[in-house]
Amino acid sequence: MRYSPLLTDLYQLTMLAGYLDEGMAETPAVFDLFFRHNPFQGGYAVFAGLDTALDFLEHLEFSEDEIEYLQGLGLFRPAFIDFLRSFRFRGRVTAPPEGTVVFANEPLVTVDAPLAQAQLVETALLNIINFQTLVATKAARIVHAAADGTVLEFGLRRAQGPDGGLSEARAAYVGGVRSTSNVLAGKTFGIPVRGTHAHSWIMAFSDELTAFRKYAEVFPDSCILLVDTYDTLRSGLPNAITVARELRAKGHELVGVRIDSGDLAYLSRQARRLFDEAGFPNVRIVASNELDEFVIESIRAEGGCVDIYGVGTRLATCAGEGGGALGGVYKLVRIGDRPRLKVTSDLAKATLPDRKRLLRAVAADGTFIQDVICLDGEEVLPGHTVFDPANPLQHVTIPMKARLEDVRSVAMENGRRTASRSVSLDRMADRSRNQLALLPQGCLRFINPHRYKVSISQGLNDLRLRLMEEVRHGYHDIANP
Amino acid sequence: MRYSPLLTDLYQLTMLAGYLDEGMAETPAVFDLFFRHNPFQGGYAVFAGLDTALDFLEHLEFSEDEIEYLQGLGLFRPAFIDFLRSFRFRGRVTAPPEGTVVFANEPLVTVDAPLAQAQLVETALLNIINFQTLVATKAARIVHAAADGTVLEFGLRRAQGPDGGLSEARAAYVGGVRSTSNVLAGKTFGIPVRGTHAHSWIMAFSDELTAFRKYAEVFPDSCILLVDTYDTLRSGLPNAITVARELRAKGHELVGVRIDSGDLAYLSRQARRLFDEAGFPNVRIVASNELDEFVIESIRAEGGCVDIYGVGTRLATCAGEGGGALGGVYKLVRIGDRPRLKVTSDLAKATLPDRKRLLRAVAADGTFIQDVICLDGEEVLPGHTVFDPANPLQHVTIPMKARLEDVRSVAMENGRRTASRSVSLDRMADRSRNQLALLPQGCLRFINPHRYKVSISQGLNDLRLRLMEEVRHGYHDIANP
Repeated sequence: MRYSPLLTDLYQLTMLAGYLDEGMAETPAVFDLFFRHNPFQGGYAVFAGLDTALDFLEHLEFSEDEIEYLQGLGLFRPAFIDFLRSFRFRGRVTAPPEGTVVFANEPLVTVDAPLAQAQLVETALLNIINFQTLVATKAARIVHAAADGTVLEFGLRRAQGPDGGLSEARAAYVGGVRSTSNVLAGKTFGIPVRGTHAHSWIMAFSDELTAFRKYAEVFPDSCILLVDTYDTLRSGLPNAITVARELRAKGHELVGVRIDSGDLAYLSRQARRLFDEAGFPNVRIVASNELDEFVIESIRAEGGCVDIYGVGTRLATCAGEGGGALGGVYKLVRIGDRPRLKVTSDLAKATLPDRKRLLRAVAADGTFIQDVICLDGEEVLPGHTVFDPANPLQHVTIPMKARLEDVRSVAMENGRRTASRSVSLDRMADRSRNQLALLPQGCLRFINPHRYKVSISQGLNDLRLRLMEEVRHGYHDIANP
Repeated sequence: MRYSPLLTDLYQLTMLAGYLDEGMAETPAVFDLFFRHNPFQGGYAVFAGLDTALDFLEHLEFSEDEIEYLQGLGLFRPAFIDFLRSFRFRGRVTAPPEGTVVFANEPLVTVDAPLAQAQLVETALLNIINFQTLVATKAARIVHAAADGTVLEFGLRRAQGPDGGLSEARAAYVGGVRSTSNVLAGKTFGIPVRGTHAHSWIMAFSDELTAFRKYAEVFPDSCILLVDTYDTLRSGLPNAITVARELRAKGHELVGVRIDSGDLAYLSRQARRLFDEAGFPNVRIVASNELDEFVIESIRAEGGCVDIYGVGTRLATCAGEGGGALGGVYKLVRIGDRPRLKVTSDLAKATLPDRKRLLRAVAADGTFIQDVICLDGEEVLPGHTVFDPANPLQHVTIPMKARLEDVRSVAMENGRRTASRSVSLDRMADRSRNQLALLPQGCLRFINPHRYKVSISQGLNDLRLRLMEEVRHGYHDIANP
């Protein structure tokens, strides 16, 4: 799929024009994409969107009418317009596989490329990775709350436009949601699609029982009836049981009922009891209506009997404290042979300079102990001391029994995907499920989760402190030592 | 632009298959799109997205590979697949022009079409209208807070995927935002694009002053300098003043500075003072960093000297109480010759049945008095009694001096746009600005706004109460009297 290279902020282009004029367009640069806080005030994030981002990079090219539009702005000199005509992305991208569990301050996507190329792609990379990682994380939280229940996504009508709905369905699947109502997402990504009927079906017929019967006639083997149009207990459920009996008499079984309003914990228990008593223990109960991880947790806490949770608005919009947007940023960490640092008065907000590796210390049983960010080429081993990035006085020792694994690998080289990178969405979803099981359990909690430790290596800590000292003495050149 | 007809929830297609089997696919139906609460707990909404929605409807057609995908699902009979091959939207759409100020419970988009056509388009219409109306409303609130300041939108990196950013820029412009950073939105919709440089520009050079000088060399007449990379007061502003003097010596003027962190009220006052003292009263101050209507209001309350507000994340995600998603719904209000009602135990949530008109009572000076929803064909005149839809005991009289105007008109007939409907985005933006000036001022307040009155006519009130009574006596046929 082609995305327009104009999918960018104007300032990327004005900076490019400047770099070209200054003879810096080809200077090697390294940028890190990372976020400063786990979304939803939670204990982790699920990385997603890489494949979409690589698609963008691989096909980045200005068409003639895009060039004409830029010329018409009257901002750019002819030399820059010519430069854009032959512009391609030829850099390296380092990133975790999608579905990987990641944390605040970790370098997620690192772009090594000539300055002009690395700069131009900032906006699109942030747009794609921010949103998909946010949705995958929200989905993982909702799936965790649902425990044995399965989760269906139907947020398209509340998503940010057509593509918002499409990316949302993809990322939700990476985060563990099992199916979608979005038919285009089904076709585009191979995600299983689900759905039966709406209230309007009931209202299009003279009465509810007739509407149920007609639907069961058309779909005798995949029939889920929406029971709350008039009154769930007095009308919807009794009528659904009547239809379940009629279906069985004809050799079919009612698949389920959906409750879309009212007290879902109470109504789902009543529905379960009524169907069990009537001899239909396999009829499944679907619940929906502004569900999120907190509502689902409370339904389960009250003994609700929901088999399938339909989640829409609150997944599509990533609602909730610390939600809405992943505050991902994209920062220059090296230019030419100089590591770079963005300083602020707050140490915790100063960036991590230079090209880096992201390591995960893993116990013998596979569980995750902590992550370590180190300089590229630096040797980090069990037994080494590592530091809290927000407080260099706090340090810990990597356990001797830990195994250190690279979280990231090269996903793109010279602007082309590396061969190993054709991963199915199912593998991504497996990865997120497996990794979440290996996290300290407290990290999965919604309120005040356990804070998974992310340390920086001795070498990175030293470099960072030295660069900060240099910046403090005059706002000028930070030379490589 | 072509949108896929698969941009829909699966249940629309399963219902369609059912309607076809039941011989109901061609039964005339009327659906209303409306929302139940003004977004952001505010006093109004700005309607947007219609042109995008009409595009979708006008080009709705299944391609061969879309048909194949649906066949492959194994859900549908061959007769239905054939039906889809020749499927087109041939209905009527009634709606306000974009930029119209609208309110909770008002019918916004009404679709008159054969049942199958009206049903299939539900998801896409909601997706498009919900999001664009939400963004246009958020934008109008932010623009109102900014008063004399202008507002620039740069939310692309935090939007829901590429298209989320594109629709957002469009709708924000309808709501009064004057320009965007999104180059693709500039090309697609003709919105003015703006932008200069990022922190990475500063960090790519040996020091801040050099970076400023280089930028000013490349763009001597459109130079806005980002002054907060190291220290706004001690470094950024003094360096910017140096460059302003150098530019002036060469016959150019610095356009402005941007402050992206820190206490924006305080720093903008200091910046204004420093530039005024240095003889640069025309240098403009741009502020950004998680701005929304509340932050902007507080900056102005503290005497901040901001000329241009750059708004990103909180506009792109429509953050805030009652934000995140417009809870738009799409309900069947008439089928064949029968008006339909969705009842609930809460009168306020019961829908308004049948085909309707939306009228606005306007005073002699043009200000808006109240809106009235009536039945199609019903005569409503000044002096008539109208009713609160949530409480039929509450009624008011339309003032004798009021002029009653139709808020909506036919935007599409037989699946084709009506001739009058090629409206520019600028006209839409003018409309929202003009209409907001005609609203009771209290409606524009952010906290506990004045509630603009929306009443229903005698005829609609009578029909609704009668239908509710009929539904209460057995959940069955609601015949037309």
